[in-house]
Amino acid sequence: MSSPVSPKPDADYVRIFDTTLRDGEQSPGATLTSEEKLEVARALSRLGVDVIEAGFPCASPDDFEAVRQIALTVGCEVVSGRPSSEPPVICGLARATEKDIRIAYDAIKEAKHPRIHTFLATSPIHREHKLRMTKEQVVQRTREMVALAKSLCPDVEFSPEDAGRTEPEFLYEVLAVAIEAGATTLNIPDTVGYTIPEEFGALIAGIVKNTKGIENVVVSVHCHNDLGLATANALAGIRAGARQAEVTINGIGERAGNTALEEVVMALQTRKPLYNLRTGIDTTQITRTSKLVSMRTGMVVQPNKAIVGVNAFAHESGIHQDGMLKHQETYEIMRPEAVGASKTLLVLGKHSGRHAFAVRLRELGHPLEGEALDAAFSRFKTLADKKKRITDADLEALAASEVGRGKEYFTLDAVQVTAGSSGMPTATVRLRAPNGELLTHAAVGTGPVHAVFKAIDELVKAPSELLEYTINAVTEGIDALGHASVRVRAGSEDGRVNPQHGSGQAPILHGHAADTDVIVASTKAYLYAMNRVLAATNALEKPAEKSRPDQSGAAE
Amino acid sequence: MSSPVSPKPDADYVRIFDTTLRDGEQSPGATLTSEEKLEVARALSRLGVDVIEAGFPCASPDDFEAVRQIALTVGCEVVSGRPSSEPPVICGLARATEKDIRIAYDAIKEAKHPRIHTFLATSPIHREHKLRMTKEQVVQRTREMVALAKSLCPDVEFSPEDAGRTEPEFLYEVLAVAIEAGATTLNIPDTVGYTIPEEFGALIAGIVKNTKGIENVVVSVHCHNDLGLATANALAGIRAGARQAEVTINGIGERAGNTALEEVVMALQTRKPLYNLRTGIDTTQITRTSKLVSMRTGMVVQPNKAIVGVNAFAHESGIHQDGMLKHQETYEIMRPEAVGASKTLLVLGKHSGRHAFAVRLRELGHPLEGEALDAAFSRFKTLADKKKRITDADLEALAASEVGRGKEYFTLDAVQVTAGSSGMPTATVRLRAPNGELLTHAAVGTGPVHAVFKAIDELVKAPSELLEYTINAVTEGIDALGHASVRVRAGSEDGRVNPQHGSGQAPILHGHAADTDVIVASTKAYLYAMNRVLAATNALEKPAEKSRPDQSGAAE
Repeated sequence: MSSPVSPKPDADYVRIFDTTLRDGEQSPGATLTSEEKLEVARALSRLGVDVIEAGFPCASPDDFEAVRQIALTVGCEVVSGRPSSEPPVICGLARATEKDIRIAYDAIKEAKHPRIHTFLATSPIHREHKLRMTKEQVVQRTREMVALAKSLCPDVEFSPEDAGRTEPEFLYEVLAVAIEAGATTLNIPDTVGYTIPEEFGALIAGIVKNTKGIENVVVSVHCHNDLGLATANALAGIRAGARQAEVTINGIGERAGNTALEEVVMALQTRKPLYNLRTGIDTTQITRTSKLVSMRTGMVVQPNKAIVGVNAFAHESGIHQDGMLKHQETYEIMRPEAVGASKTLLVLGKHSGRHAFAVRLRELGHPLEGEALDAAFSRFKTLADKKKRITDADLEALAASEVGRGKEYFTLDAVQVTAGSSGMPTATVRLRAPNGELLTHAAVGTGPVHAVFKAIDELVKAPSELLEYTINAVTEGIDALGHASVRVRAGSEDGRVNPQHGSGQAPILHGHAADTDVIVASTKAYLYAMNRVLAATNALEKPAEKSRPDQSGAAE
Repeated sequence: MSSPVSPKPDADYVRIFDTTLRDGEQSPGATLTSEEKLEVARALSRLGVDVIEAGFPCASPDDFEAVRQIALTVGCEVVSGRPSSEPPVICGLARATEKDIRIAYDAIKEAKHPRIHTFLATSPIHREHKLRMTKEQVVQRTREMVALAKSLCPDVEFSPEDAGRTEPEFLYEVLAVAIEAGATTLNIPDTVGYTIPEEFGALIAGIVKNTKGIENVVVSVHCHNDLGLATANALAGIRAGARQAEVTINGIGERAGNTALEEVVMALQTRKPLYNLRTGIDTTQITRTSKLVSMRTGMVVQPNKAIVGVNAFAHESGIHQDGMLKHQETYEIMRPEAVGASKTLLVLGKHSGRHAFAVRLRELGHPLEGEALDAAFSRFKTLADKKKRITDADLEALAASEVGRGKEYFTLDAVQVTAGSSGMPTATVRLRAPNGELLTHAAVGTGPVHAVFKAIDELVKAPSELLEYTINAVTEGIDALGHASVRVRAGSEDGRVNPQHGSGQAPILHGHAADTDVIVASTKAYLYAMNRVLAATNALEKPAEKSRPDQSGAAE
């Protein structure tokens, strides 16, 4: 297998550039803490992705720090189970400005294979309305900024935003300039998401045919799913010569999301005789990576989602399957084992020890240590007393509760509810306040969860609006762990910058927790979200902390 | 607009053939009651679909009766809001056997525009392993069965199953025979779901070019989403000359599902200058039809689902939008209003009367009357006492609880729980048994919902396994209605026949309920599912009721 970091890998190798942590995390409400990002990055590395776009370092000091942590850890090591012998490329996004590029580089430079990804819109509409720049200015800026990035980092990716609506001759010119200035990957985004495969394939074919120097760089595709065509567009681009696909796990991302990693990878593998292409992905890790991202971001996967939906492999008829097995030369068959979707097994019981527990968690990609391990083990023992079968899914949920909490201003001491069809559902909540004091409040609500949330609101006083509340059973069976997820909009504006749209949205924050008691799970999830609201509000109240890291400070 | 029932409509008109109630309802766990099917059929008619495939009448007496009811009602009337002046075609699926075809016809014949859809596999693998028929026998059977269907019904659709792996010359021959025997629509399924758009487009182009008599019939596409390419494949088929798309709402269906109606329709509309095609769909009804199907089937829609996900239109940047509005000639823009995804408004308050309530429900497509209306209104008043804002989504959830319950063996009299972090969550449930007796049981569980389910299990004694449990807030806000959904596998085998795979699975049954109290909602949902388990078990215990309707009996 060719190295993912060689400037021009084998002609039949499609690089997988995962942007779950950048474009995916921009989904409303999918915000992750730094610890959660690190956990997802580790899972992506294990899955075998070639490039991890770890974030947009300029967006906020937190984003900068999260990218830096990923570069320092996942970017410097070959995590256990990774199919490649090299760590993944760690990529930071930057607008085509000196400040963005320098900050992005400072965030990623400690990785073994850093990459700067800079972008500039090239279409007439964007030049005129957004950038207010002439063609010449766009060419000049591209040349200067790609050269700047190249002076810092040998691996530079350039994206002409809104390429599909750019005059073809001008597009080829800008891309040739980017190559001349040192770009090693040219990424072609379908920014509006309305392209159909024939058009997008033709766009890539035109670029491959007409751009000077294109034979020395990798062409990349970045598609959006507004019309449900992201996977088809990405594949059409790959057939036309692209050798990198920008994707996210479960296809998450703004609006209808990005191309789903699992769909492109499994299409290339299932139809290998047709495409004659390969990726570095260990497909057997797809299902668990999908579940991890779904749980951490709170973005559910519908049962009929291709590859990773719970029904994706249900009801395959025996005779049908049998017939295809006999004719693999015609159509390769996709089996649940190929994506790691086999049944989870009983792995641990109530008599299992701390060591066995830690080993299994590590195998599952959650290398907990110290206090976090102690806390998870104690939760495991409690769970084992309640629940007959403890499966991998239960362990994942347990580990989830110990990862990435962020700062906890208020912690739960106790909750108690009475509810039912007679009305008057009542909750009593006792929280430990930041100053150590125990605060208790009782509230009556329209239901027990409403009563709990009202009581917490009274105690925490973090202005916010509840947008979404969900409980899912994590595993099958009547004693399943319940996974509660809440999504709230904080009362004030975000300090974070969105690379395409600019800043200034009220942040949407997500909290999640698992427990056999749905009331306890709901209480913890809501409190988690409220602590995030407090953190967001707090950050805004201290303008000194809000300012973007400057070059010297960020590099520390 | 051309009539959806003319044998060969305008060349630029793409018929939308909705199979949510047939292929969609085959999704594991998406089973609907007859009343729910009727409600969905009414919504589909209102949405403007040309053809409703209402079911597979031969599958079971219940399926037969559901199709017949849809034919008698939705198939005979123009429901309020339907964009066409004709009722939709009501289609019944039938294997290519005399019995299936006669039963299908008996189920649909009362509709104003009935259609028989019969299918037979044509590929070598299927001929050899499944059918054990020679080419000549396949041709003969096609001729006879299409002719039989034609003798009953002028509108006949024929599908060559596994067309993509059939020898092209033989495929053209079978299709020509079907046309000669009277088929008016030829549907080309991508049975395995692994085709890519170039291949599927070429398959359709080959059929259009080489099949004798093809100019007199409508070519149809039926794609599956195993690799995430269903929409792209359907569109490629349409570009190659197909003028009917078989689709489902939200893309539900076996495994990774079918082509999503909303994606094909909105791609054709958004890219109208490219396709130059139109459909009869009122796109502004897409969002609410999507929500109805999701709620009734318990198949959630992920936030990043194209067109109908809650994030699909989130975060559209102002400048971006603005730029596109100025250049509609280049790219049409898709706006939330176009699919009816605008914010729901406050529609009713606690002082609203029964008439206003009934009118609004009717506008929403739930024409409740009599006892069902009384029950819904009483629930509305109770809700209005608890909840500040009552939105359309709340009303939909309320109406949901009054539709399609099926037979209720046990009804809920009262439930009460205490739970919290101190452990010992306890539930007391009182049910009214089929004989009128009140039964009470208390149980301790790992959580309050577990305790409730255990108590119900003790009282109802319906052997089953809980597969999935979910609660979703229906609306935004802390006092939102909770919608609980459970999915259970009954202890015994199904009496129902699957058209592709044969019979003999243990049925998976779904229960749902809405309440401001999640415990009450969970209790009702589980009890609903248990009543369905009892109904399924009961049906199996009485073999006389299990037998398929014969021709004379079914026609009654």
